[in-house]
Parts: sequence; structure tokens; C-alpha cells
Amino acid sequence: MSAAGDARLEAQFAFLNEADRLKSVLRATTLCDGSRRENSGEHSWHLALYALVLADQAAPGVDISRVIKMLLIHDLVEIDVGDVPIHSADGKAHASADTQAAESRAADRIFGLLPEDLRDDLRAIWNEFEAALTPDAIFAKSLDRVQPVMANLQSGGGTWIEYNVTAEQLESRVGSKIAKGAPRLWDWVREKTRVYFK
Amino acid sequence: MSAAGDARLEAQFAFLNEADRLKSVLRATTLCDGSRRENSGEHSWHLALYALVLADQAAPGVDISRVIKMLLIHDLVEIDVGDVPIHSADGKAHASADTQAAESRAADRIFGLLPEDLRDDLRAIWNEFEAALTPDAIFAKSLDRVQPVMANLQSGGGTWIEYNVTAEQLESRVGSKIAKGAPRLWDWVREKTRVYFK
Repeated sequence: MSAAGDARLEAQFAFLNEADRLKSVLRATTLCDGSRRENSGEHSWHLALYALVLADQAAPGVDISRVIKMLLIHDLVEIDVGDVPIHSADGKAHASADTQAAESRAADRIFGLLPEDLRDDLRAIWNEFEAALTPDAIFAKSLDRVQPVMANLQSGGGTWIEYNVTAEQLESRVGSKIAKGAPRLWDWVREKTRVYFK
Repeated sequence: MSAAGDARLEAQFAFLNEADRLKSVLRATTLCDGSRRENSGEHSWHLALYALVLADQAAPGVDISRVIKMLLIHDLVEIDVGDVPIHSADGKAHASADTQAAESRAADRIFGLLPEDLRDDLRAIWNEFEAALTPDAIFAKSLDRVQPVMANLQSGGGTWIEYNVTAEQLESRVGSKIAKGAPRLWDWVREKTRVYFK
């Protein structure tokens, strides 16, 4: 192989080996059986599977392959920043300016391990997810919000109990985001959550 | 929502909730830092990321979006069957007739949770991966073989030491499969493994 080909593979694997660390970042949500906290690597896999299986909930024109790509990389910045639970700090930490700045620096470092073409491509997809303005990103965000709801339903309340979440907080922090990309899905899921929010 | 829509969502989530159990299936390979064994859920995520980043190693005509779909679902049968390590039982257990029959029954059950259209689609993709005859499946298999090699290189030998693997066994059980879908990649990786197989 050429020296250029070797250097490219070195960069591709520098990134892929670094990505392995996402398997050690723990989220607030547990597995469905409540046995342990979920890590952000397996969470990203589960979300990509959600996109495959729930494609019929997306708005017309959403490109599911792009949504999957987005979901596979969306949490890599947590290798540096950690997971910031949506209900922590009274719901104020998740999208704070400090968190966003730290995540942007993490994206510079982690995607910066890649060859330039891949770096630019994946960074653009990550920026699109974060901005949550395109139909693909809006649907990806819906799935990212609905998966922990399903885990909490399976595990008996999970983070809703841990963080004393109210029905209004669930609606504003979670439901409104699900409904934006997948309105029928939130209608159906909201009904299932009612038993925890009387 | 209509009753039919409700029934469809129930089936989609019966599958997605069941899939969560793949996060509790442990593989022989450890994380790159050696801290614990990898589970098959996070492994599936890492492989999908491999496909994204190593797309330029695939033969012309390989559809990376289909490869990713294949990799996201390829290990779900392990929920019933467990992971059968490639180097266990002197390399004979992994593709035995017994293992294959058990995996086929698991595929019937697990994909059978889905609505019919999704069941048929994902089962066909899984069959294609198992048969390993199409360019997409051959490339997906290459990635499934190369990822544990990279983990072993990072962790200091890993399963090669645990199972007393020889250079010839690595070539026949692993290298030949990587080379079939990504020949340049195996040339490059083989060099890195030499220090463990003198």
C-alpha cells in the first residue's frame, strides 16, 4: 500500500479506537430491565435500530440512512464532556451555553482525528443534528428523546422518579421534542406514561 | 390514531424493547482499554461506525447504507443463543450446524415480533448477512472480523492469548474473511498483528 494509504488508515483507526471510549460513558437511564445504567455506545446502536424500525413515523422526505448516520455519531462528544441528563439541574444543564461550548470543542478534537474529507462530512452531520432545524435532524432528535421514555416505562419509572419529574416537565423537555419530529408517536407514548404522572 | 396504527406501534416496540437485551450479551473480546468484556449491542454500534468510516475500503458497488442496516441487526439472534466466540472450541463452534440452527430459530422469534413487512425485510437482510455471498454481506463480514482484531491490538493481545491462537489460525479464521471483503485493509492490519505471532 502507498504511504498515503497507510496514513489514511492510521487516521481512520485513530478515530475508531477513540470512539471505543463511548462504551464507558454512562447515561442516567438504565437498561429496560433496570440492571445497570446504559452506556452511550449501546444507546447509539439502539437509536439507529429505532430509526430503522420507526421509519414510517418520519415526515415525508426524511432520509432514514442520513438519520442513522447522524444517530451513530451524535453522542461521540460525550467522550470528553460526559452525558448531561435531560432532567438534571432542574432541566437547565442539558442545553446550557457551557455544555454547548464544551461539546463543540470535543467535536473539534474527536472528528479532527479523521482524514479531512471524513472529518468535514461527519462534523457537518453532527452540526446539523445539534442545530435540529432540518427534517432529518428533527426526526433524529425525536428518537433520541423517545428511547429513554421507553426504557423508563419498562424499568418502572427510572429517571422520572430519580429526578422527581412532573407531567409538565416531561411534556416540555421530552414530549414537545418527540412531537416535533413524530407527532403520532408522542400521542401513543404519552398515553403509556400517564400512570406515572397522576 | 387508528386501532391498526396502535397495533403496529405495539409490535414495533415489542421488537425494540426485546432488542434492548442484546446489551446484556457479553462477547469474548474486551473493550480497547481491557476494562471489561464488550457487549453485542455496543459492538453492533461500533461496527456500524466502522462501515461509515471505512467505506473507501469496500469494493465498487457496495451500498454502505445497506451494510450499516445489516450490521445493526446481525447479532440480535444472540439474545437467545449467546455469542459464540470465533476462537472457542478450537474454532469449531462458531459456524457449527447446531449454532446455525439455533440462530435461525432465534431469528424466527425475534424478527417475528415485528409487523410483517418489517419482519420480512429485516429477516431477508439477516439471511443475506449469514449467507455472506453478496458484496454488501462480504464487506459487512470483513468489518465484523476486523473490529475484534483492533480491540486485541489495543488491549495487549486479548482473546489471542486467552485461546492460544496461532498465526495460521488467525489467518484462516479471521484474516481470510477480512481479505475477502477488504483486501488492502487486511494487508495493513496483518502487519500490526505480527508482534503477537512470532
